[in-house]
Amino acid sequence: MKALVYHGPGQKAWEEHAKPEVIEPSDAIVRVTKTTICGTDLHILKGDLPSCAPGRILGHEGVGVIDSVGPAVTAFKAGDRVLISCVTACARCEYCRKGMFSHCKTGGWILGNTIDGTQAEFVRTPHADTSLYPIPDGADEDALVMLSDILPTGFECGVLNGKVRPGSSVAIVGVGPVGLAALLTSQFYSPGEVIAIDMDDNRLAVARRFGATQTINSTDGQAVAALMKLTAGKGVDTAIEAVGVPATFELCEQIIAAGGVIANIGVHGVPVSLHLERLWDRNISITTRLVDTVSTPMLLDVLAAHRIDPTRLITHRFKFDDILKAYDTFAAAAETKALKVLIEA
Amino acid sequence: MKALVYHGPGQKAWEEHAKPEVIEPSDAIVRVTKTTICGTDLHILKGDLPSCAPGRILGHEGVGVIDSVGPAVTAFKAGDRVLISCVTACARCEYCRKGMFSHCKTGGWILGNTIDGTQAEFVRTPHADTSLYPIPDGADEDALVMLSDILPTGFECGVLNGKVRPGSSVAIVGVGPVGLAALLTSQFYSPGEVIAIDMDDNRLAVARRFGATQTINSTDGQAVAALMKLTAGKGVDTAIEAVGVPATFELCEQIIAAGGVIANIGVHGVPVSLHLERLWDRNISITTRLVDTVSTPMLLDVLAAHRIDPTRLITHRFKFDDILKAYDTFAAAAETKALKVLIEA
Amino acid sequence: MKALVYHGPGQKAWEEHAKPEVIEPSDAIVRVTKTTICGTDLHILKGDLPSCAPGRILGHEGVGVIDSVGPAVTAFKAGDRVLISCVTACARCEYCRKGMFSHCKTGGWILGNTIDGTQAEFVRTPHADTSLYPIPDGADEDALVMLSDILPTGFECGVLNGKVRPGSSVAIVGVGPVGLAALLTSQFYSPGEVIAIDMDDNRLAVARRFGATQTINSTDGQAVAALMKLTAGKGVDTAIEAVGVPATFELCEQIIAAGGVIANIGVHGVPVSLHLERLWDRNISITTRLVDTVSTPMLLDVLAAHRIDPTRLITHRFKFDDILKAYDTFAAAAETKALKVLIEA
Amino acid sequence: MKALVYHGPGQKAWEEHAKPEVIEPSDAIVRVTKTTICGTDLHILKGDLPSCAPGRILGHEGVGVIDSVGPAVTAFKAGDRVLISCVTACARCEYCRKGMFSHCKTGGWILGNTIDGTQAEFVRTPHADTSLYPIPDGADEDALVMLSDILPTGFECGVLNGKVRPGSSVAIVGVGPVGLAALLTSQFYSPGEVIAIDMDDNRLAVARRFGATQTINSTDGQAVAALMKLTAGKGVDTAIEAVGVPATFELCEQIIAAGGVIANIGVHGVPVSLHLERLWDRNISITTRLVDTVSTPMLLDVLAAHRIDPTRLITHRFKFDDILKAYDTFAAAAETKALKVLIEA
Repeated sequence: MKALVYHGPGQKAWEEHAKPEVIEPSDAIVRVTKTTICGTDLHILKGDLPSCAPGRILGHEGVGVIDSVGPAVTAFKAGDRVLISCVTACARCEYCRKGMFSHCKTGGWILGNTIDGTQAEFVRTPHADTSLYPIPDGADEDALVMLSDILPTGFECGVLNGKVRPGSSVAIVGVGPVGLAALLTSQFYSPGEVIAIDMDDNRLAVARRFGATQTINSTDGQAVAALMKLTAGKGVDTAIEAVGVPATFELCEQIIAAGGVIANIGVHGVPVSLHLERLWDRNISITTRLVDTVSTPMLLDVLAAHRIDPTRLITHRFKFDDILKAYDTFAAAAETKALKVLIEA
Repeated sequence: MKALVYHGPGQKAWEEHAKPEVIEPSDAIVRVTKTTICGTDLHILKGDLPSCAPGRILGHEGVGVIDSVGPAVTAFKAGDRVLISCVTACARCEYCRKGMFSHCKTGGWILGNTIDGTQAEFVRTPHADTSLYPIPDGADEDALVMLSDILPTGFECGVLNGKVRPGSSVAIVGVGPVGLAALLTSQFYSPGEVIAIDMDDNRLAVARRFGATQTINSTDGQAVAALMKLTAGKGVDTAIEAVGVPATFELCEQIIAAGGVIANIGVHGVPVSLHLERLWDRNISITTRLVDTVSTPMLLDVLAAHRIDPTRLITHRFKFDDILKAYDTFAAAAETKALKVLIEA
Repeated sequence: MKALVYHGPGQKAWEEHAKPEVIEPSDAIVRVTKTTICGTDLHILKGDLPSCAPGRILGHEGVGVIDSVGPAVTAFKAGDRVLISCVTACARCEYCRKGMFSHCKTGGWILGNTIDGTQAEFVRTPHADTSLYPIPDGADEDALVMLSDILPTGFECGVLNGKVRPGSSVAIVGVGPVGLAALLTSQFYSPGEVIAIDMDDNRLAVARRFGATQTINSTDGQAVAALMKLTAGKGVDTAIEAVGVPATFELCEQIIAAGGVIANIGVHGVPVSLHLERLWDRNISITTRLVDTVSTPMLLDVLAAHRIDPTRLITHRFKFDDILKAYDTFAAAAETKALKVLIEA
Repeated sequence: MKALVYHGPGQKAWEEHAKPEVIEPSDAIVRVTKTTICGTDLHILKGDLPSCAPGRILGHEGVGVIDSVGPAVTAFKAGDRVLISCVTACARCEYCRKGMFSHCKTGGWILGNTIDGTQAEFVRTPHADTSLYPIPDGADEDALVMLSDILPTGFECGVLNGKVRPGSSVAIVGVGPVGLAALLTSQFYSPGEVIAIDMDDNRLAVARRFGATQTINSTDGQAVAALMKLTAGKGVDTAIEAVGVPATFELCEQIIAAGGVIANIGVHGVPVSLHLERLWDRNISITTRLVDTVSTPMLLDVLAAHRIDPTRLITHRFKFDDILKAYDTFAAAAETKALKVLIEA
C-alpha cells in the first residue's frame, strides 16, 4: 500500500509500505477513505516530538471502512464504515475508567506517533471496539473527519474545560483551526460574547463568519486594553488559549475575569510565567488537557441534529496521491488561507 | 475603647480609640468577646499590604455580642451572639449572586484592611445581615473563632477547590495553621492518603495527630522523590499549596497526578514558573481563591454535629490587654509552636 | 390608584385602591409600567389557592420605575427602572443562601398571593435590593416582563432541572406559555431533538416556529407510541411536564429514557401514580421546583446578547384600563390563541 | 462441579452441574472462592423475577481465581485473584460510555439472572476485562465480597444519588443489609445526622453501632412525627428508601426537606402514590437506579485506606456444601439476625 512516512526532521515521503496486519486480538485494520493533516504533524516534521521515530506513518485522523478485525473485536466487522478517533482507549485501565482516555495505559494518542497512523491506505487501530465509532447512515463523512481530533479538542479542552455557559463572555486567543473548532462548539452553550484574538486579519474574518461577536487583532500589543474595553473592564469568564506560546498564555492571565477559567489547548514547549502575585485572590482556574474524545458520542448527536457544520473548517481537498501538495498547502496557511485540508482515497 | 492599631510597618499599639458607630443602615456594632491573629496581620505589619493604611485597627476574625444595629438590619438585635465572617458580603452584587463574596463590590475582605477590624473591644460590621452568623445555643465559641477565616479558607480554597474525594490522595504543602485547617476539613471527604509536607518537624508531628497519613520533611530537597515513592509514581490527586512562595507552588507542579488539581491557598508576592511544557497534556487544573465564606453554614452544621474539633488549632490564650504578647507568641511560631492564639475580652 | 383586586372565586374588579407605602426599611414602591397575567392568576380566580385571600391585588410580574424606597434600600433610588421578580428573596435565610429563593423564609412567591401584587399602578416590593433588578440601558422592556416569571420558570424548572445538553432529546409535554418558555430556553444548550406534545394544533404550530423539531398531537391517545417511534424506542433524555395533571405526568413516566430526567413544572392538585415497579431500575430522576429566579442574571445576559427573543411570547397588548379584557383574552386562549398578554400603563 | 440451581418458585438444589466454558472471546472462567446471598436471590426463589428461568445457577456476588480466559481477555490470566462485579459491562455501548453499566446492551445484571451465576464452584464472566477487578495484594477478600453488589448499591443508589454532604441530614428507611451499606458509605461525606428508620429493634441497634446518630422504630406509625421532631420540622436533606414498598416510599415523601433528594434503592413491585399536589413546589428530586458499579475503583481505594470495614456486614459463615443452610439463615434474618452470610469454598 501507499503511506506518508516520516523520515526524520524535514523528511517525509508518500511511498510504498507493507499493509498492516492484526497483531492484537482487539485490533482492526481500516481502509482509510478520508484523512487530514493536523498541526501536530507539522511539529513532528520539525523534529519537535521525539516520541515519533523516523519510519513512522503519520496521521491520527480519518474515516474508513473495516478491512478485517481481530478475534476480540465484536462491535465491528469487515465492511463497516467507521470514524477513527485520534485517541486510542482500552476502556478498562484506571484512566479510561475516569474518562481520561488520553492517558490510557495502552493507548492515548499513539496513532501516527508511537504506532503507524492514518495517512495511508490502511491503518491498524488497537482497542478497536472502544476507539472506533460506527458511522451513522447518511452521515456526512467529510464532517466526520473533523470529529477525529479537532472538534473534540476544541470542545473538550476549550469549551467544556472553560465552562462556557449561556450569556457568558469568552475570548479565544488564536483562531487557527483548533481555535475555530472551539469557536464553533462554544456556541452549543449560547455564550453572550465570543471575542476572537489573533494577529491574522484573514483568520479574524473567518472567526467572525463562524460566530465571533468581536475580533481583536493583537499585532499592536494593545489586545488587553481592547478586550477590557469590550468587557467593561471585567475581562472574560472564559479565556481559551489555542496557540501554545508564553505570550498568548500570559495574555489570557491578563484578560481573565475574577471567577473565570483559562482553558489551555495550546501545545507548549517552554514554561510560562504565572502571575500568582496578581491572581492568587482572583478565584480563577487554569486547565490543561490532552483531548480524551469522551465527547465523541455527544458530538455525533449534535452533528446528526445539524446543530453544527464542521465542514466549514475544510478549505482544500486533495487525493491521496497529492498528499505532499496537501502538506505544502496546510503548512503555508498564512498564504493559502488553509484551515483543514481533506485528503481522500 | 481599646484597640490594636497599625501605625505603619513594624509599628502597632494597643491603645485607646473612639468606639465605632453605625454609619450605614445595614451596619451592626459588635462587642468583640474573642478574636485571633492571622498570618495576614503579620504581613500587614511588615508593610506588605498597601491597602491597609496606618491608623487602621487590625483583625478580621472573632465572635461577639451585638451592641447596636442600623435601621436596615433585621436578622440581629442588640444582645445577640454572633460569629463575624472575615469576608463582608452585600448578597446582591453580581459577585455575591455567584457566591463569590470575596469579590463583593462593597465588601470582600475589608475588616482590618480597608476599614477598622476586630482586634478591638468593638467593631463596626457592614452588611451585617449577610456577614454575621447567629451563634447556635450551646456552641463552643472558641471553635467558632476558627470559623471566621481559617476553617473556611482551608476548606474552600484547599479542599473544595481541590476536589478531595473518598479514597483520593492529597498532599498539603505547608502545614502551618491554614494547611492544618485544610487537613482537618479534607477529612470530611474521606481521602485515602493525606500527605503533609513541611520543613518543620513539629508541624509535621501536629499534622500526623490531625490525621495526616504520611509526612515528608522537605528540608533535604527530596520531597518529590519521597512523594512519588508513596504514590507508586503517580503523584497526588490534590495538591494544596499553603505557603505562598514559588518553591512550594512548583513542588505542587511536580507532584500532581494526571487529572489532578493544584489548589492554591498561599498568598503570593512574586510570579511562579508554570511548566506548561510538561503539564499541557496532563489534564490538570490549578485554582486560586480568596475565601468566600459561602461554606460557613455547612461548617456550622458540621461543627454542630461534632464532626470536627477546630479548637485543636488553638495553642495559646491571652486576654485583650495582653494582645501584644499574643502577637509575639504568634510571630515566633517556630519557637513557641503556636498555631492559633485566642484573645479574649 | 387603580388595581385589579380579587374578591373571591370568580370575582375581580379593576378599582380604586390605596397606594402602597413603605412598611419595612427594605421595601421599595414601584410604579408599574408593564405587567402581564399568569396561569396562576386564573387558578386564584377559580378559588384554587387558599393562600390568596379576597381583597388581594393580583399579579407577580412586571417592570416599572422606583417611586420611593425604604431607608435600608441601597441598590435603587427613585426614578430607577426595574424588573420585578415574581419571587421575593431576603438573600440571608438558610434557603436563600442555598439559592432556593422560592423558599425564602420571609419571601418566596408572595406578590399577588399573600401580599398585594403588580396588577396595579403601584406595588410594594419587600427585600427590594435583592428582589428587583436594574434594567440595563436600551433593554426591551416588553421582553423583560417575560423575565419576571415565565422565562426563569421554564428555564430553571424545565431546562436546568431537566439537564438539557448538546445533542440530547427533549420532550415538552404541554406547550402553553410556560412550555414554550422551556422550549425557547432549552435551545441555549443545543439539544438534538425537541419534541412538543399537546392536544392543540395551534400551539403545536407555534412550538414548531419556536424551534420544536417534532410535534405530536396527543388527542388520539397514541403519543407514547409516536414518541417512541421518533426516538428509536429509547424515549427522551429530558421530559418536561408543563401541564400539571396526572395524565401528562404519567405520559412523562412512559417516555423517559433510561438515565433521563422528568422535570416537572406543572402545578398539581392531586397525586399521580409513580410506576416504580417499572422505573426503579431505570436510573431516572424526577424533579420538582418552584422557580427560584436565581437564573435572572444569566437570562439578562442572554437577552442582552440577543440570544433569545422572549417577545415572541407576547400575542396581545392592552392598556391598564382594559385589564379585564386582557383577562378575558388570556382565559380564552384556545380561541384567542393568546400566549402572554402585555398590559401597559 | 457443584452449583446452587434454581428449579422454579420455591425450588433450589446444591447439585452437580457441568463446569462452564469460555463461549465468547472476552469471557473468563473464575473459580469462586467466596460468595454470598442477596435479597434478590430470595425474590427469584419466590418466583418474582420471570427473567430468571428454572435451571439457572443463582448468585451475582463473589471473589475468586481466574481459571481460564478467552483470547480477547488481556487484563487477566489464569491464577489472578479477582473481584466479580454483579454488573457486567462491555464498556463500549452507548450506556457504558455514559457510565450506566447497569443498562449495558450486552451486560447489566445478568449473572445469576439471565446467565449462570456465582453460587457455584466456577462461573463464566462475560466482558471479563471490564467486569472483573484485580484483587490488590493483602486485601481482605471477605470485605471484597461486599464490593460485588451491596456496597456499590448502597453507595451509588443511596449516597451518591442522594447527594449526602458534610453536615447534611440523612434518613435511611429500612436498615437491612443494603440500608446498612448506605449507612456505612454515607459516612464518607460526614453528614450531620443519619437517622435510621425500621420496624426491627435489632436492626436499629446494629444501625446505631454502624454510625446512625438517631433511630426511629416505625412500628407505631408515628415515624414522620418523630423525624420531624428530630429535624426541627424541616425534614431531611436526603431520604434513602431501602425497602421497596409503597409505605416506605411514601414515608420518604413526607419526611423530605425542601430542596432534598429521595434516593430510591428498593426493588418495587407495585406503583406508589406520588403526592405532587404537596411536592410540586418543594424543589425536591427523586432518583432511581440499578447499581452501575462505576464506583468500584473508588470503593477499592477507600477500602485500601481502611476508611471502611465492610466485614461488619458479615454475620454468618458457611462452606459451599452448607449453602442450603446459608439460605435458611439468610431467609430467616428476623430470627437469626443475619445481615450478610459468607459462603466459602
